[in-house]
Amino acid sequence: MSSQELLGPLITALGRLPGIGRRSAERMAIRLIREPDRLLRPLAGVLQEADQRACLCDLCGSVTARDVTPCRLCRDPGRDDTLLCVVEDPSDIAMIERSGGFRGRYHALMGKLSPMRGDGPLELRVESLLKRVAEGHVGEVVLALSTDVEGDSTAAFLAEKLHALGVGVSRLAFGLPAGSGIGYSDPVTLARAIKGRQEA
Amino acid sequence: MSSQELLGPLITALGRLPGIGRRSAERMAIRLIREPDRLLRPLAGVLQEADQRACLCDLCGSVTARDVTPCRLCRDPGRDDTLLCVVEDPSDIAMIERSGGFRGRYHALMGKLSPMRGDGPLELRVESLLKRVAEGHVGEVVLALSTDVEGDSTAAFLAEKLHALGVGVSRLAFGLPAGSGIGYSDPVTLARAIKGRQEA
Repeated sequence: MSSQELLGPLITALGRLPGIGRRSAERMAIRLIREPDRLLRPLAGVLQEADQRACLCDLCGSVTARDVTPCRLCRDPGRDDTLLCVVEDPSDIAMIERSGGFRGRYHALMGKLSPMRGDGPLELRVESLLKRVAEGHVGEVVLALSTDVEGDSTAAFLAEKLHALGVGVSRLAFGLPAGSGIGYSDPVTLARAIKGRQEA
Repeated sequence: MSSQELLGPLITALGRLPGIGRRSAERMAIRLIREPDRLLRPLAGVLQEADQRACLCDLCGSVTARDVTPCRLCRDPGRDDTLLCVVEDPSDIAMIERSGGFRGRYHALMGKLSPMRGDGPLELRVESLLKRVAEGHVGEVVLALSTDVEGDSTAAFLAEKLHALGVGVSRLAFGLPAGSGIGYSDPVTLARAIKGRQEA
């Protein structure tokens, strides 16, 4: 058995992960084989564990235990059903939760509209979002999407669809990040921060 | 069991791989759980397979089957024992083999000298390289290292050690890459290509 027959399938499996090119996959594969105790076996173990115990929540799309779906956040009776926050990735939910600034429900799109990557509305969880809004008690949808071109067009697309359902739609404020300064900013951020300036 | 208890260990295991930051590991973990049939199970399977069957060749450092060590390249009687090519990563060996331009033996350093990352000679396979050269029939060591600052300093360090053993040391030629042009080049590459110009 040649080294390519041994490495090939591992490189292929790693290369299917998001953001991993062939060269990175090769490096990762060799490192895994080089350090079986520290890297390979722990990863194989947690993958098996995740396979047996984890799945995605049908409602919000975040990771949950197989025997807890809908997930804890979706079930939590203390949260506001009239506010629905739309994020790109389930990992964004944890970020927003850490901020403590939101007490409504969540919906992960699993990406954003990207003609370059071939991600249209059908590749995202748009249908289920519109269904949730149409059938639920949502009063306002908060779009917490990236502030790049793809995030902007995704927000515009969703806003049109959601307005048609008679629901309020908002987007996270644009402006200067905390702990930063004018000198570290860029023209687009500054223009947006000036446009959205608030009374002091 | 919360989603963090489920995700945390997977993110940690993925984040230990070379070049993978926390955010990439989060995305990869969620994608794995989202697509168990296409991503998670195949990866878990090939990891287990690699754990059982693959290891690194004691001599050159490339991946080989557990029951074939030294590896095929190191054993191949048709190759030139007097030429030893030093590369950073085992994956570089496959690249050079594909070029068909080298018929000697190989030695992978497993990286390059990098004070930033804390990689000194002891982190690399330098001792075993010097031992191979001192005890073998090597006449020339070809340094096939990166052409960046770290690659340059690694080459200078190794050249000094190898010269002391009375062996010839060379480095791959600097110059313009194939299929490129002056307009796509950079000043350092151009300066090196001019310095190393060859009779036409």
